[in-house]
Formats: sequence, structure tokens, C-alpha cells
Amino acid sequence: MKPIRLGMVGGGQGAFIGGVHRIAARIDGQFQLVAGALSSTPERAAASAAELGLDPARSYGDFAQMAQREARLKDGIEAVAIVTPNHMHAGPAIEFLKRGIHVICDKPLTATMAEAKRLAKVAESSKALFILTHNYTGYPLIRQARAMVAAGELGRIRLVQVEYVQDWLTERAESSGSKQAEWRVDPARAGGGGALGDIGTHAWNLAAFVSGQEPSALAADLSSFVEGRQLDDNAHVLLRYEGGAKGMLWASQVAPGNENGLRLRIYGDKGGIEWGQEDPNKLWFTRFGQPKQLLTRNGTGASPENQRVSRTPGGHPEGYLEAFATIYSEAARAIRAHQSGAPLPAEVLYPSLQDGLSGMRFVEACLRSSSRNGAWVTL
Amino acid sequence: MKPIRLGMVGGGQGAFIGGVHRIAARIDGQFQLVAGALSSTPERAAASAAELGLDPARSYGDFAQMAQREARLKDGIEAVAIVTPNHMHAGPAIEFLKRGIHVICDKPLTATMAEAKRLAKVAESSKALFILTHNYTGYPLIRQARAMVAAGELGRIRLVQVEYVQDWLTERAESSGSKQAEWRVDPARAGGGGALGDIGTHAWNLAAFVSGQEPSALAADLSSFVEGRQLDDNAHVLLRYEGGAKGMLWASQVAPGNENGLRLRIYGDKGGIEWGQEDPNKLWFTRFGQPKQLLTRNGTGASPENQRVSRTPGGHPEGYLEAFATIYSEAARAIRAHQSGAPLPAEVLYPSLQDGLSGMRFVEACLRSSSRNGAWVTL
Amino acid sequence: MKPIRLGMVGGGQGAFIGGVHRIAARIDGQFQLVAGALSSTPERAAASAAELGLDPARSYGDFAQMAQREARLKDGIEAVAIVTPNHMHAGPAIEFLKRGIHVICDKPLTATMAEAKRLAKVAESSKALFILTHNYTGYPLIRQARAMVAAGELGRIRLVQVEYVQDWLTERAESSGSKQAEWRVDPARAGGGGALGDIGTHAWNLAAFVSGQEPSALAADLSSFVEGRQLDDNAHVLLRYEGGAKGMLWASQVAPGNENGLRLRIYGDKGGIEWGQEDPNKLWFTRFGQPKQLLTRNGTGASPENQRVSRTPGGHPEGYLEAFATIYSEAARAIRAHQSGAPLPAEVLYPSLQDGLSGMRFVEACLRSSSRNGAWVTL
Amino acid sequence: MKPIRLGMVGGGQGAFIGGVHRIAARIDGQFQLVAGALSSTPERAAASAAELGLDPARSYGDFAQMAQREARLKDGIEAVAIVTPNHMHAGPAIEFLKRGIHVICDKPLTATMAEAKRLAKVAESSKALFILTHNYTGYPLIRQARAMVAAGELGRIRLVQVEYVQDWLTERAESSGSKQAEWRVDPARAGGGGALGDIGTHAWNLAAFVSGQEPSALAADLSSFVEGRQLDDNAHVLLRYEGGAKGMLWASQVAPGNENGLRLRIYGDKGGIEWGQEDPNKLWFTRFGQPKQLLTRNGTGASPENQRVSRTPGGHPEGYLEAFATIYSEAARAIRAHQSGAPLPAEVLYPSLQDGLSGMRFVEACLRSSSRNGAWVTL
Repeated sequence: MKPIRLGMVGGGQGAFIGGVHRIAARIDGQFQLVAGALSSTPERAAASAAELGLDPARSYGDFAQMAQREARLKDGIEAVAIVTPNHMHAGPAIEFLKRGIHVICDKPLTATMAEAKRLAKVAESSKALFILTHNYTGYPLIRQARAMVAAGELGRIRLVQVEYVQDWLTERAESSGSKQAEWRVDPARAGGGGALGDIGTHAWNLAAFVSGQEPSALAADLSSFVEGRQLDDNAHVLLRYEGGAKGMLWASQVAPGNENGLRLRIYGDKGGIEWGQEDPNKLWFTRFGQPKQLLTRNGTGASPENQRVSRTPGGHPEGYLEAFATIYSEAARAIRAHQSGAPLPAEVLYPSLQDGLSGMRFVEACLRSSSRNGAWVTL
Repeated sequence: MKPIRLGMVGGGQGAFIGGVHRIAARIDGQFQLVAGALSSTPERAAASAAELGLDPARSYGDFAQMAQREARLKDGIEAVAIVTPNHMHAGPAIEFLKRGIHVICDKPLTATMAEAKRLAKVAESSKALFILTHNYTGYPLIRQARAMVAAGELGRIRLVQVEYVQDWLTERAESSGSKQAEWRVDPARAGGGGALGDIGTHAWNLAAFVSGQEPSALAADLSSFVEGRQLDDNAHVLLRYEGGAKGMLWASQVAPGNENGLRLRIYGDKGGIEWGQEDPNKLWFTRFGQPKQLLTRNGTGASPENQRVSRTPGGHPEGYLEAFATIYSEAARAIRAHQSGAPLPAEVLYPSLQDGLSGMRFVEACLRSSSRNGAWVTL
Repeated sequence: MKPIRLGMVGGGQGAFIGGVHRIAARIDGQFQLVAGALSSTPERAAASAAELGLDPARSYGDFAQMAQREARLKDGIEAVAIVTPNHMHAGPAIEFLKRGIHVICDKPLTATMAEAKRLAKVAESSKALFILTHNYTGYPLIRQARAMVAAGELGRIRLVQVEYVQDWLTERAESSGSKQAEWRVDPARAGGGGALGDIGTHAWNLAAFVSGQEPSALAADLSSFVEGRQLDDNAHVLLRYEGGAKGMLWASQVAPGNENGLRLRIYGDKGGIEWGQEDPNKLWFTRFGQPKQLLTRNGTGASPENQRVSRTPGGHPEGYLEAFATIYSEAARAIRAHQSGAPLPAEVLYPSLQDGLSGMRFVEACLRSSSRNGAWVTL
Repeated sequence: MKPIRLGMVGGGQGAFIGGVHRIAARIDGQFQLVAGALSSTPERAAASAAELGLDPARSYGDFAQMAQREARLKDGIEAVAIVTPNHMHAGPAIEFLKRGIHVICDKPLTATMAEAKRLAKVAESSKALFILTHNYTGYPLIRQARAMVAAGELGRIRLVQVEYVQDWLTERAESSGSKQAEWRVDPARAGGGGALGDIGTHAWNLAAFVSGQEPSALAADLSSFVEGRQLDDNAHVLLRYEGGAKGMLWASQVAPGNENGLRLRIYGDKGGIEWGQEDPNKLWFTRFGQPKQLLTRNGTGASPENQRVSRTPGGHPEGYLEAFATIYSEAARAIRAHQSGAPLPAEVLYPSLQDGLSGMRFVEACLRSSSRNGAWVTL
């Protein structure tokens, strides 16, 4: 099968997530990068394109130009990856969606709710697909966990405990030349949420993906521990669900000793599951009253949902890039189904614009609650 | 050195914590159990005393009788362990304190704040000591963690994340003949807090012991997940400290797959520590910017505070009973110092009536916040 | 029930294992230390006795004197703990056995095979019991593991992988004033085995205890890595069993980063188990083709054998001292049965003289194999 | 940079390792698969090629045909991946090497020593490169471990403990339709080693790669536990190094509960390291006398060698496929240097024909020792 022609906005030299998207797009061989507006700095854009072996004619100075020209090319891009800082998601996404080019966009959806709504409107009327890279939903054991919850193996859900903990912003990295830090703590580029937007939305999304439900209310206590930092670097959030479940969400970028600690625990009246992103090939499952079981990626006890997105046998660890690649491969399946008019099989799952909007509501609700001294607010 | 003569109130056949206290009292050979009012049921009291090899003449039908008689004996008990349900702490404690007999009392302090205040008043005017068995403070690595925080090794504290998670009340154990469950979910015997009082107070105490500070405000969301249960079986609590630190406390008895998961993580601007009670011989310490270190009980990197309360070399795991025994041995040191008039060395640490009052304030504040839909309340 | 009157040979100030024996004897309240020949140095013996609160009249200058006098006392000791270096096991053991006093002796059995045989002969004709403190057999999950193997849950055993790894002799501790190191590397006091005798015999015993079988042949490669050290500080041993099983035994005291790493893995044609002494409250069990299960001490999935020797519920870690105490409590049960003439219940298990002889044969076979360049030798 | 044109021998539908090679070749975008002799069954070859989007004209019926034709094409393949069973390595490798086409070959080198020698001779006189995919050497922390040993951070090496443990051959999988099992237990296709060749060579290679030394003698005890199996499914091997170090190597495919447990521990007189393939983003390092440290992939404490082959920041787990991809990227660097005549930078490391020969000698020595009842044999 021919790879899908992919363009990229952002992701030039020195970027982090752009490289990740490129590897993810390559792993399963479903995409080929053929065009890019890789940087807003022309020289950097050109150099980056050259490094990636792009045809110089398809290295663009800005996304608008790329959208216009590629839409007219006979072999123009079929999809575009948007890997810019948050405030630069909506603009390009709208531009490509309007031209029927599928969008694979990094999270969070946008920097502001206003942008998000504008984007949603355009997406609704576009025939093109919108895929949001909440990549952690690509982990095989997360797929199995979701299926187990849906099948009632945990019983009625009571507790959702999720945390995403890092330490890289413990000190003022934004003043020491870290590009990654700079824009993430800048309200103009990141939006109203700091840790909230950067990692809190991942935690929020993952909890919803696995538990199959979203909180209807929350109470948040946000902090900016590092002096001079305008956005939150720590978020403590309590959650309530309509069905009666409760939860806690903790997002922090100032907890020394934590690299990328996204952890999810869900408990129902019949059982519980526990998973951590840094050791993602293991899922702990306890049926109440029975010994704890270790379920592994594509190993003994693996469900069809787990096997379906695994590439190697159990014991051959797959990681962050493979989970990310699964989002790309799900996108490829969706794009091909869309192109052929075939129905999309139910097992194909990718984070959508709705997930993006939910994340924006989460950030907004946290800010609202925090501004009212942590009062409970509804979503 | 002669062992201290000990009496016990409660702890007859079928009890859990009474047996733990007796082992703890024996481990370091500092106490000898010589009298008891082991059960409110006379036959059970007698049978229990016989089993323990007590002189029948010193097996009493009730604590008041025991207090009166032992106080008059030449070789009467010097200290008493109170291991009854919560509502039966204050009565005996007051009775013995009034007679100058040292009290070693299980937690929480009492069932109600009114009792607690009454007890505190008596304790103040008594010459006898009051020791509360917040036993987890006896773990050697908890001692080291406290010393590290005090020495500034974590820098200024920002985050205190503590949880105490169990699963034994996932179903209605209180209706299936579990004596342990019955009284713990009964407001008349347990007081206003369920999980809060039973394990939440331990989490609260441990966080304070190690961090060296107590929250000045909290917001709580309490749940009773099991139908018909009057007291909370899950507590989600957010914490704020005067110095600017924030925290989360989670206490649950309905999380399948968790046996006795008391875990503490504290992060400052220079470093972080992580410890879990089920693997208590390890403490993870990270200086920000350096690799995570594994500190062990009485092993390489052990501080004097850690070594002081260790009995065996590193790698020879000590556990729950040893930590409990350390509280008893600290009590013994305090009692002997009291008896001899010698000053108590600064390194001797035991949970006091003040810690008990703090726990009561914690429970009370959680109930208050919860009744106001999780509003922040001050302590 | 009255505690059994216990004497002790060795274990004076500065000793390690003597203190462990005393705590172990106290934990379950089955023994009371009433006499001692605690040191060969009279002043140290007296000072140690005073510290332990022994009646000065029952603090003896040597074990022979103690044996003679205590045997004649009306309330003389019923049992004696021998906690001296290896070369001082046989002498006292024989002396007490001859007088009908039960012996609880530290491992290995003796320093030499000749002594072992002499001791065995005396033991045979003595009415008193001989208990060897291979303490690791007291762990609850080791009891469960043994029962599982016996019940065929692993199927036919194929592989026995055992290791006991430490690092404390990585450098020449014997030259830096460590009493513990000094005698252990001295052939005159330790016997022919260094790491072999000190920890290899534990590994050997544990593997046999759980697997229910002993190797019939072995091949050993012994090393003395530290310059000037006469005894082995590392032993690599291959094992063959009559039923066709194979195994590896590794004992080392020169592996930096290992405190007290006794680990056992056993695999059969139906399943496997894995256990480690430093995290002793967990046993991993896999039925081939099913997910790995976590069995815990006295938790869900605990067998009667596990529950029987547990003191606290799952999640309240018990450790080295409790396992050691279980050996003492088993000894107490055996002694009481012996005294009353009642049959010893089948579930009471303690390491015997036969186990000690087996350990001696193990050391001897390793030395023999090693002297023949690692040739396979039969046992 | 243009990707290197790659052909593949083997790896058609139903194969395992072929798919792994293709992903590995894609991850860093350094190769493009353009030709294949994917199966000895013509229909399967064609179908596999079509699935992979190969030009049908470049899907060959056999490797000889592919070698001949591709060597003549202007844009013929520059390198070929050989991913067939062991007995089909030498033939194709020789064919391509003779034509100057670089060979990337799966391990072990060949099925027999005779083939290996033949291949070595051809390779010597070929200008093309030979890369053997001992993929585990691609793990970033393995690179760091090697650098640490080389820099003397462990001091003089004393102990090398390596094991590679699986369970998938616990039962007679070869009789239940598993293609993967069938050839691996067939001497005609696998060669003289079963577990030895399949995974033992990996363990051997990894130990040598990290320790920087190879054993000069070994003693092996091989077993075929499953009835009717001709090749070993378990290998117990003792190792001796010229410098005085000792080691143990255990390879097993019959240990229930082990998926792909390749573990390496190395100890010197100054420190020790411990690493496991199933949790490959962690390396434990202990300087004797200091606390154990956790070194992570591309995290704090990461060495340049670790960072160089990492794609994502610490905490974003990379796994088996990334390590495999690193071998491909190292191969690409070597091929490009070879093509341009530039010297190969010292930091570029890939397993070579010499490593393959070493693995063959290992298998051969184990068979020799085993046939002499485990006698020590020299290498």
C-alpha cells in the first residue's frame, strides 16, 4: 500500500515534538513526509528541510503558502502534522481543513477557548479529518485497560486517580535558554494553562479514554512555585463524575525525581487497575478478593485490543514512540477509510477534536475554580 | 535493665491491634505485660489473660478496677497500653493518667473532639506521659527522611503528596461478621471519621512528621461508596501550608489491589523523596539535577537517625512490627528518663497528645469542609 | 503458657547474630533468656549479662560450666542458643545435648565435617532436640512456595536458580577491624568455606526446603577475589538433581550494590515461582500460559502454610526478624511437644541436624570439585 | 540525505524477525526497502512484496537471482538484510558480499562453524561491510554501561552474571504449529545450539560488549527438558576470563513467567551495574560504599554514549525496536562512511563478523564441554 503523503508545520531544528511525530509517522510505514513549513525562520526552515531530504520546492516559508500550493498539486499532501506551540495550532489547522487536507495536530487543541471554538466550527464543515495526538492512548495496555473497564471487569467505577509528574521546570529553565521551557510558560504562546495544558490535558484525556467517562465537576488548586512564572507549574484537582465516581488529578513539573510520570489507577466495586507510562508494558489488575495479576503487552492475558496495536511479542518492550506511531497508524486507517468511502472499523481509535475541546474545557474549568479559591465548578 | 511493668486495656481474643502492641512491647525487651483488662466480656478477658500467662489476680473485669488496684500495688503497672476501639480511648486514658500511670494509646486519639479535649486537659495536669502509637513514624527511613527535610536537603518544601490506600472495605465486610470492620464503620464507636480516622490520621501524621509542618487549610471531598455505610470509606483532601507548600492526601479503603498502601512523596526546590510502607526499607532521594539514589535501612547512606532505630544491617528487612516496637522503645526511654529525672535526649521521638489533637482537628476539618461542598477550611 | 527457659552461648557485646537470636526468641514470647556464657572474655561476659538483666549467678565464664550447673538446677535452662563462630558450635552443642538440654544452633552446623559427624553421633543418642537456624525457611511465603511445589502446582521441577549475593567483603574488611569479617575469612574459625559456609549454605538449604529435593551432584568454581583472603568470597556452582532437574547456585560477598540478596527461582513444566529475601512479602507465581500472579504474605491467595506463620495482615510487612522468630516458635512447639510427649503436628517445620549435615556436605563437595578444576562430584 | 536502498532475504508473511528489521530500518529514516526475496515459496514472496508496496519487478524468487540482478541495476540495493533461519544466513551473505553489497544479518552468524568460516573468508576479501544484528547492544544504557566499564568506574572486573530467560518453549510448541518454534529446535535449520544459539549468543555478546572482555574458558551443562527435543532448551554455563574475572551465563526457554528476560550484572572491585532488557530505560549503578544510583536513558546522569543513541528525553521509554533501529542507524553511518571514504567515527559501534564468530565459538565450546560432562574447555 502506498504511504500517505504528509506535510508538517513546525518541527524544525531544535524542536522536540516534531522529531517525535516524524519517527511516529515512519514506524509503521503508513506516511511519507513530502512537504514542510518547518520553521518561521526561513533559513532554519530550509536547513531543516534539507536535513530531512525534502524537495526544496516543497519546503515552504509559511503554512498558508504550503496549504495553498499543496492543495493544488496533483500529488499534494493528503495530511498535515501540526507540531507548533499551542497558539499556532488553530491557524494552520483551519487553513488545511478548509482545503480538505487531513490534520494531525499536537495537543492541547489550541491556546485559547476562542480559537478552539473557531477551529471546531471549521472542522465541522470540513470533509477532512482532525486527529489530536494524545499519544498515550496508543499504548497497548491502555487499550486493554479501556476494554476491561468497558466490559465491566472492574465493576462500577468508583475512583479515578491520575497523575502526570515531571521535574524539568523545578528551576527557572525558561531563563536558561531552554526553548522548550520558554514557550510553555508564556501565556501568549501556551495559553492559560502551564502544566495544565502541557501535561494535565494528557492526564485528563487518558483518564477519560480508559474510564469511559468524563468528570462533570472539578475543584482545582493551581500553583506557580517558581518565582516569576506566570502559568501554573503544579495543579491539584479533585474530580466528580456523574455516575458517582470521584477522582484526583495531579499535574506537576516541579517534582524532583520524576521524569515523565504519567500514572493511572482506576478502581471499581469489583476490581482495580494500575498503569504507569514509564513502565508501559505492564498493567496490574486485581479482581477484588483474588491475587493481583500482571498483564503484559502482547503477552499472556493480552486482550485483542492490546494485541492489535502491538508490533512485537511480550517481553520486547515497546515505548513512547510506538504508542505515538499507533496514533499515526490509526490516523492512516481513518484517512484511507475516508478516501475509499469504507466504514471505519469500530476498533480504530484516535483522539478527536471532541477530545481536544474536552481538554480545553478542563483547563478553563481549572482556571475558573482556582480563581474562586478552589470552588467546585461544573464542566 | 528491668523491663517496665505494662498493663493492657482491650486486646483480648479476636482483636488485631492488641496482639501487635504486645509483640511491639516484647521486641526490644523493654516491657513486660503483667496485667490486663483485656475484654469487656469477663470470660473472654479471663481466657485471654490465661493464654498470655497473666497472673489471674491481675486480669481485671474493667479498666477502672485495674487502674485503682494497680495504682495501689507495690509492683503495679508503670504503663498501660490502650488498644480498644476509638470511643474507648479517652475513658481509660484519663483514668490511668490521673493515677500517674503512663499511657500508650492507639490512634486516633479519641472518637470525638469533646473527648479529646477532656483527655488533653487531664493529660496536662498529669505527671504521667501520653504516647500515641502513630507507629509509622518508627520506620528508620522515615526518621532519615525527617532529618533530611530538617537539614534542608530538599530545599524549601513545595509539595506533600501522601496517600493511604487499602481495599478491605470494598464490599460490606461489616455485614459479614468482620469485627474489625464493624466498629470502624460505626459512628458510635469510631467517631465521625471512617477511613479518615482509621488511616487518614496516620497519613496526616506521617506527612507532618517528615515534612516538619502541618497544613493550615484543607478542602475535602468525602465518599461512602459502599451502600448503607455511614462513615467515609474514601477521602480526597487538598492541603495548603503556611509556607506556601501544597499537598494532596488520599485515604481509601475501597481500592482493590491495595493492601496497606501508605505512601509519602515530598518535593522541595532542591530535591525530592519517595517512600512506601509496603517496601519500607527503601527511600528514594533525588537531588534535582542528579541521579535518583536508593537509600536503605541501615545500609550505605543511612543517617544516624536511621541507624539509631535499626536492629539489623541493611538488606535484612525490618517491617511493621519493628517500627511499632520502636515507638514502644522510645516510650520506654521517655518513661525511664521521666522516672530518673534525667532529660530526654533530643533524638528520642514519639507521637504525643499534641499529634493526637492534630489528627482530631484534621478529621473535624475534613468533615466541616465536606459539609460545605469541599470549601477550603482553616485548621 | 510459661516461656521456655533459654541460655545462650556467645552473643556478647559487639556480636551480630546473638542480638538477632535474642529478639527472635522474644517476638512470640515463647522463650525467656535466663542464663548465658556470652563471651570468652570474662569482663565482656559479665557486662553483657548485666546489660541483658541476667542474674549474675547465671552468667558463666564458659559454656561447659554453664552446661554442668544449669543441668543440675531445678529451674535450669531447657534450651540453649549457640551463636558463636562456626568452630565453636560443635563443642557446646555436644555438651548441652549430652545433658538433655535442647540446642538451637546457628548455621553452618560446624567448621569441619569431622566435628559435624561427632556432633551428629551425640545428637542421635541424645533425647534433646537440635534446631539449626536456617532462618530464611521461616518466611511465610517460603512456606507457601514449599507447599505449592509439594502440591504439584509447578509440575515436575526442572530448574532451581538460587543466589545469595552481598557486597560487604568487596574490600579487605577483615583488615579494618570488622569482627564480623575477621572470623568469617579465617579457616581456623570459619572452616573450609568462606562465602560458601556463611551464605552458600543458606542458599543451599532454602533451595532444598522449597524444591523438596537436594542435588545429587555439583560442579563448583570458587574464587577469592580479595588479595590475601584464604577462603572463597565467591562461589559459582552448577547443580544436578536425581529427578533430572538442574540448577545454579551463586554465593558472593563481593558484588557491590547487593546488601543481602538471597533470591530463589524455581521452574517446573507447569509453572514457576520467584522470591527475593529483600522484598520477602511478595511471591511471584506463574502458571504457564496464564498471567503472573503476585501472592502476598497473609494476603489474598495466601495458603494456610503462609497464614500459619504470619502475625499481621497482608500489607504490614514482616521481615528478617519475624522469619527468625518463626524458627524459634517452631522450636518452642517442638520442645513443648517433646516435653509433653505429644506428637509434633506435621505443619511444624524447623531445620534439623540433617539439614546441617547436608550443608556441610555441600561445602565439602564444592571444595572437592573446585580442587579438581570444577569437575562434577557426587554428594 | 537520501535513504540507503535496502533489499531483504526472508521476512515474508508469518515471519517474526523480518518485520522487526523493517521497522528498525524505518525508524530513523536511513533506509528504504526496495527489493526482496521474501520467501522461498513464490506465492508468499509475491504476496509479501505486494503488501510492503515493493515494485513487483524487484520481488525475487530467490536470493541468488536478487543478488545478481540488483548488483547490475543502476539503482540496485546498497545493502541487504538477511532475516532467514540460521542455516540460510551464510549462503545469501556470501552471495551479496561477493557483489559488494553490504550485509545486515540476523544472529547467530550461521548454523555451523564450517559455514561461519566460509563466510568469514569471503567477508575478508569483500569490500562490503558485514553487520550482525546483536540488537541489544543498541540500548542507550548498554552503551553507557560499556563506557563506564571502559572508564574504570567499576574498577577491575571480577564478576559477569548474565542470563537470558524465556518460557515460550516450556511445552512442545514445535508440535503445535508454531513456525518460530519449529525451525529453532531443528538441528538442520538452527545448527547445534537451541537456546544457546537463539538467545545464548545474545547473552554472550552483550556480556562481552559491556565488560570489554571475552571468557577464555567455559564449562557448560546443557539440557533438553521437553521430551523429544533434540537441541538444548536450557544452558547453564560457567565462565572464566583471562584477567581473573568469573561469570555465569544462563539461557533458558523453559522458565514459566519469563517473557524475554535478558539481564546483565557486572561487578568490579569499585562498583557494580545491573540492567534488564524488559525495563531497559534504567541502569542501576553502585559505587562500593555509596548509595545505589538509578541512571536513566537520556536522563540525569546520562553519558554522551547514552545520549547519542537516544531519540527522546528521559521518561519517554524507548524499547526493543529503537535499540534495533540503532543498529541499523549505526550500519547506515558505517555504509555512508564507507561510500564516501571518510573514516568511521570511533563512537559508531555495530556488531561485526568477529562478534558472530565469537558467538559460534561460544556455542561450539558449550557443546564440546557438555559432551565431556561439563569439563572446562578453552575458547
